Amino acid sequence: VIPARVIERKRSGGTLGRDELEAFFAAYLRDEVQEHQMAAFLMAVYFQGLDAGELDALVDVMLRSGDVLDLASLPGARVDKHSTGGVGDKVSLPLAPLAAELGVFVPMLSGRGLGHTGGTLDKLEAIPGFRTDLTLSEFLGVLADVGCAMIGQTAEIAPLDRRLYALRDVTATVPSIPLISASIMSKKLAEDLTGLVLDVKVGEGAFIPDESGALDLARTMVGIGARRGVTTRALLTAMDRPLGCAIGNALEVAESIECLKGGGPADLRALVLELAAEMLVAGGSETDPGVARARAQSTLDSGRPLERFARLIEAQGGDPSITEKPRRLPAAPVTATLRAAHAGTVTAVQPTVLGYGLIELGGGRKRLGERIDPAVGFVLHAWVGRVVATGEPLATVYAANPEQAESGLASLGAAFVLGEPGERRPGMRPLISHRILETGVTAWETGQS
Amino acid sequence: VIPARVIERKRSGGTLGRDELEAFFAAYLRDEVQEHQMAAFLMAVYFQGLDAGELDALVDVMLRSGDVLDLASLPGARVDKHSTGGVGDKVSLPLAPLAAELGVFVPMLSGRGLGHTGGTLDKLEAIPGFRTDLTLSEFLGVLADVGCAMIGQTAEIAPLDRRLYALRDVTATVPSIPLISASIMSKKLAEDLTGLVLDVKVGEGAFIPDESGALDLARTMVGIGARRGVTTRALLTAMDRPLGCAIGNALEVAESIECLKGGGPADLRALVLELAAEMLVAGGSETDPGVARARAQSTLDSGRPLERFARLIEAQGGDPSITEKPRRLPAAPVTATLRAAHAGTVTAVQPTVLGYGLIELGGGRKRLGERIDPAVGFVLHAWVGRVVATGEPLATVYAANPEQAESGLASLGAAFVLGEPGERRPGMRPLISHRILETGVTAWETGQS
Repeated sequence: VIPARVIERKRSGGTLGRDELEAFFAAYLRDEVQEHQMAAFLMAVYFQGLDAGELDALVDVMLRSGDVLDLASLPGARVDKHSTGGVGDKVSLPLAPLAAELGVFVPMLSGRGLGHTGGTLDKLEAIPGFRTDLTLSEFLGVLADVGCAMIGQTAEIAPLDRRLYALRDVTATVPSIPLISASIMSKKLAEDLTGLVLDVKVGEGAFIPDESGALDLARTMVGIGARRGVTTRALLTAMDRPLGCAIGNALEVAESIECLKGGGPADLRALVLELAAEMLVAGGSETDPGVARARAQSTLDSGRPLERFARLIEAQGGDPSITEKPRRLPAAPVTATLRAAHAGTVTAVQPTVLGYGLIELGGGRKRLGERIDPAVGFVLHAWVGRVVATGEPLATVYAANPEQAESGLASLGAAFVLGEPGERRPGMRPLISHRILETGVTAWETGQS
Repeated sequence: VIPARVIERKRSGGTLGRDELEAFFAAYLRDEVQEHQMAAFLMAVYFQGLDAGELDALVDVMLRSGDVLDLASLPGARVDKHSTGGVGDKVSLPLAPLAAELGVFVPMLSGRGLGHTGGTLDKLEAIPGFRTDLTLSEFLGVLADVGCAMIGQTAEIAPLDRRLYALRDVTATVPSIPLISASIMSKKLAEDLTGLVLDVKVGEGAFIPDESGALDLARTMVGIGARRGVTTRALLTAMDRPLGCAIGNALEVAESIECLKGGGPADLRALVLELAAEMLVAGGSETDPGVARARAQSTLDSGRPLERFARLIEAQGGDPSITEKPRRLPAAPVTATLRAAHAGTVTAVQPTVLGYGLIELGGGRKRLGERIDPAVGFVLHAWVGRVVATGEPLATVYAANPEQAESGLASLGAAFVLGEPGERRPGMRPLISHRILETGVTAWETGQS
């Protein structure tokens, strides 16, 4: 393999054969293709894309670069959910125990916050004692015992993806649909799943904000999964505003517990139920998403998923009593509340501003490996479309000290757009707009399931 | 400067400010922008281009990365000619002494063969004793004394260009019009010129084969020169067949001597005269290219440029007697001749095949720094459009041994396309098709000058 020829072919819009692409990446793993050659290749892919054959070859190479779980001995379907990332997206915390309660095994390898978005690992680690660094054998034990387990991507899973991601991060080649798809799917397929549900975010706070790009991403990932025999379903869901009301690690754990108690914000509850239904269908235990959703709803309202969440926490070394006493979660010493300066309609709550605002508060990372403060964050009291009176609270910031509270208020002030009284509610995206299956894309009709 | 942000801006089609671009390259020279980041940037430039302001900033950074000549003390215009490279292009050898005889100083920094094309340095070094590695002060001495001097690009001239070129070579980012333009112009502008003439090749054997691309390259380079106050003119000239009849270093020196004696192939003579005329106009001593061409023709036919070539050779350590006795040039021990297998019309002589064929013979390099055999090469006896009889010689290969002669015959056989008798002569490009000035492009009309 002559690296420059491979780069040139891709640069010129050509299609690489499986052997050629595998040889190119194998040479990279042996350090015979250099970092600068891979960087040029990735930029060429950014512009020219990868077709299905190239994508499958890349996913294969990534998978084979590391370990792959073997979960065949589990007595049931293995189904995971993956979100492309957003602000306030704590869905995995209530969803995993709910799905486990519904009979599917959920072997979840999660990530940390990235850019302006939060990460499931950081949220879990807000629970005192919770360990996300289980060994693979501990992970398998929890999974078999509790039905779900949640850890970070280990160094053994798809190390090539880890290396490529680090390179993409510094060479401005992250937002490429085929590269994002291959990265996500190589990690998920290493979980030895029978089914996979993708929550593809769309809107200002998503990594791919536009709908056509998000649909393309969803279709690309569903295709990769399907061609490997994993039933893969995706929902396109709104990230033009935060999900739920809590943004910040401990605050989101508390909101997840509310959800598991049958309460919490309506959008969070709705999305958890729909994703649980998709997981049941992907796992093969239901065929009709509407029926599956009804089952998920009654199971959620039974309270058993909350008990299972407590078992999960205990199995991973955490303090399960927080499910009954959320006040035992880390709490911020200072709070401050943003109030409406005038009467009017909330016309926007910008998720990216709040995501970066959380980082400013110390609740997210500016640099890899930085410690974060789990207690800080925001809780929204008003949301888009709400008509508010002068002085009505819009949101509260939870901060480590008064200076940070000021910074948090500034972020809230920038994120909230308050229109004149009587101003029309702006067009917001529906919570779920499309379902993407291997057979095609269908628009989501309200109440269809 | 945050490297990934700069790459991202260019990748997304944005325009970089002068400060930003200068800071990015300055950081690269300090190794704070890494090779893989520069590779990604160059690939982004391949797809998104550079506008005039970005180009000028890049050329400035390249120039300032090294030394720039100071030729202000020379009593006359300093004008160079640069060719974008072709097969059989020995124009610089007769042109430099002709232009010097016409009163312009020609400070020529030349290159070696690149890809399938030959390089002036390699041709000069076919002359016994000729040194292309003069120090800058020796170079200036020859230039002041003879009126022209010809050496290689030194390590002191535009080292950033050298580093970027090496990176582009292994990352498939060579064929980018702005990057090619900046690379050529940074080296030429380091020569402290008052005028510059560009011979931009077009056709199968050129690096940018298509006419619109070649025109774009010419316009881009003319713009860079003009904005720096250097009168820059370009001709678009044919490289859909070799230039002249000789291909190979010593053979091309011999053909150049023929040209300086008033003979040699008609296309070589015509191009030398037109480029000399452009140099006179670029240098300001003539305004009408037709008048300039007539002056160039009578000067060439006076024999004085040949004497000046002999002085140049002697000044640079070579044996000037080869101008009178070309047999003293290195000669290949074995020759073999390709003959027409049937009567017919020559419909193509493919320059790229012959360029790579010369490398196979040992007359060009497969790897940087390789020694080459100056004696080997090809001499064409028939050219495109010629009607030949069965057995008529088409071309002769000059080789080091019988095996190489066989390889050379195979190259010739692949390069010559012989049509049926009476087959129409295919459409060939005119030798010169366009003149490109800062004021615009004009089509070349036969006999216009």
